[in-house]
Amino acid sequence: MTDKNILEYDTVAYDEKDNKLVIIDQTLLPNKREMLFLDDIKEIWDAIYLLKVRGAPAIGVAAAIGLYVVTSNIEADNYDDFYVEFKKAKEYLNSSRPTAVNLSWALNKMDDVCIANKGKSVDEVKAALKAEALRIREEDIQVCKKIGEYGLSLVKKNDGLLTHCNAGQLATVKYGTATAPMYLGHEKGYNFKIFTDETRPLLQGARLTAYELSEAGMDVTLICDNMAASVMKKGEVDAVFVGCDRVAANGDAANKIGTLGVAISAKRFNIPFYVCAPTSTIDMNTLVGDDIEIELRPGEEITNMWYEHKMGPEKAKTYNPAFDVTDHDLITAIITEKGIVYPPFEENLKKIMG
Amino acid sequence: MTDKNILEYDTVAYDEKDNKLVIIDQTLLPNKREMLFLDDIKEIWDAIYLLKVRGAPAIGVAAAIGLYVVTSNIEADNYDDFYVEFKKAKEYLNSSRPTAVNLSWALNKMDDVCIANKGKSVDEVKAALKAEALRIREEDIQVCKKIGEYGLSLVKKNDGLLTHCNAGQLATVKYGTATAPMYLGHEKGYNFKIFTDETRPLLQGARLTAYELSEAGMDVTLICDNMAASVMKKGEVDAVFVGCDRVAANGDAANKIGTLGVAISAKRFNIPFYVCAPTSTIDMNTLVGDDIEIELRPGEEITNMWYEHKMGPEKAKTYNPAFDVTDHDLITAIITEKGIVYPPFEENLKKIMG
Repeated sequence: MTDKNILEYDTVAYDEKDNKLVIIDQTLLPNKREMLFLDDIKEIWDAIYLLKVRGAPAIGVAAAIGLYVVTSNIEADNYDDFYVEFKKAKEYLNSSRPTAVNLSWALNKMDDVCIANKGKSVDEVKAALKAEALRIREEDIQVCKKIGEYGLSLVKKNDGLLTHCNAGQLATVKYGTATAPMYLGHEKGYNFKIFTDETRPLLQGARLTAYELSEAGMDVTLICDNMAASVMKKGEVDAVFVGCDRVAANGDAANKIGTLGVAISAKRFNIPFYVCAPTSTIDMNTLVGDDIEIELRPGEEITNMWYEHKMGPEKAKTYNPAFDVTDHDLITAIITEKGIVYPPFEENLKKIMG
Repeated sequence: MTDKNILEYDTVAYDEKDNKLVIIDQTLLPNKREMLFLDDIKEIWDAIYLLKVRGAPAIGVAAAIGLYVVTSNIEADNYDDFYVEFKKAKEYLNSSRPTAVNLSWALNKMDDVCIANKGKSVDEVKAALKAEALRIREEDIQVCKKIGEYGLSLVKKNDGLLTHCNAGQLATVKYGTATAPMYLGHEKGYNFKIFTDETRPLLQGARLTAYELSEAGMDVTLICDNMAASVMKKGEVDAVFVGCDRVAANGDAANKIGTLGVAISAKRFNIPFYVCAPTSTIDMNTLVGDDIEIELRPGEEITNMWYEHKMGPEKAKTYNPAFDVTDHDLITAIITEKGIVYPPFEENLKKIMG
């Protein structure tokens, strides 16, 4: 680990001594903190499938390290025999969450390394795979850290900051994206007052963001999503930082459901609204936000998720979109690891994406 | 009952045959529908205290009918002896929810009737009390009906309507306030598509509003609070109707937490935002919304209400305001039983309040 971690854990790590993938089991949070040490491929598949590790960047890193750990134990005399087994393991892990872009992205990076080392000794290939997995992990840390540094330059000591859902350390290896300015500021004694929306229906804001930031020693206040406007009106929020799943070429940003409403309220109260986006999430092929397909999830997440009885009536329908799209005119700036992008986004995103 | 009820029950009624107060037990909704028939003062006190009946107008009516039922059984030979017992019963019921304005308002109305009939026979006083209790109930129905008629004039067939929290029949005797246009329109075949915010943390929108409207046969879609902006952006909402707890002289309106955010989003998407307010909730002595004190409730409602485990972390604080204030510039019109009040509210509220 190259950077000091103010939590006691990284979300995803590699245990050199025992050659294991290490993750924090997020399904037990916030009630129990348990690290899992994995080297069995079925266990790793389950960990991804069952959301023990979640968050696009964290899934990618866990898959890369997991694939290395599993394939490092393949007993083969030559490249071709090794590669047959490697491919099987890769495809199997890739099936754990087929729609997660970072999962296949990271597994393909590992595959590329195999192919680039075709014909070399199995030990050499394994060494190259290990290096690649650790590089993917390290890159994630550095991207988040750069986003944090840029984000921190936009706020001042004692600011009130609000975030929605979990674009935190628990969604990455360390720092998170939306939370990176908070972690870096906390290290420097910025004394932020942080508000976290609970983020219905799955409560990632309550269970994960409020958890990780308060564990790190920050001043965290958990609110229901519908209280954000009130807190803003009281003057307690100086800036909003959110993550994103995809940014279109015009700056429209898809993120967890509820982000749009936060952005609209922030605009009403003249509060800067920042989208933290690794350049890997900026999709210049998607021209406008309306082109982003929104995943609809089961209504039971709203009515049956937490309570033993159904929380809604039998005869009512439900509508449960997982994401919404925040129009670019509501976004003050998009913070990437390559710099802060201001409007006009269409022009300035092109520049930064080279 | 003077009006046809499209549900199978009124929220609060009087059972003439057995001389009982009849309420629907709202603590069991939406999983079980049970009517309670009460004539024991302790049971009536409990019903109010334990929120088996809730919603300011419904509490007032239940208290008035409950007080009549209880005092109709007083065995006294003369007015003075009767009044001693009446006062005891009144004060006891008044202690069930001391901050509910409608509770003491209704009980005082009953007291006024006693005093106006001072010296008459006990039977005459009892008859006057019965008439007053039924009048209070009937007045509530008529106020809601008028609000519904005015509200209905503002929408058209097949409109999408959104509401927040429960300002429904379950908060009144019948029709509700924010839901009155929906009930009246449904009777006339308006074929509304209705969205109900679940309304965290106590889920009145899911448990009560979605329940009562879907039971009445309307097309109801339950959403999380943070999805309202998304539904509006999709063009599915033609008007928003909400209730209110207090309207200030300048038109600022206090209502259930989350209303402000809904209003801000409605403004963004040019959707009319209507506050349904019996004139009894318009407080000309409160000049602006900032003067309205906001009740803060325990954070456990956010973190511990529904799930067996704590849904938030130990180290995070919570902030749980029960209400927020919607600024008058976000309100298209205030709908009262005396007519629709448009901006400038300061001027036009004065006119309607005489």
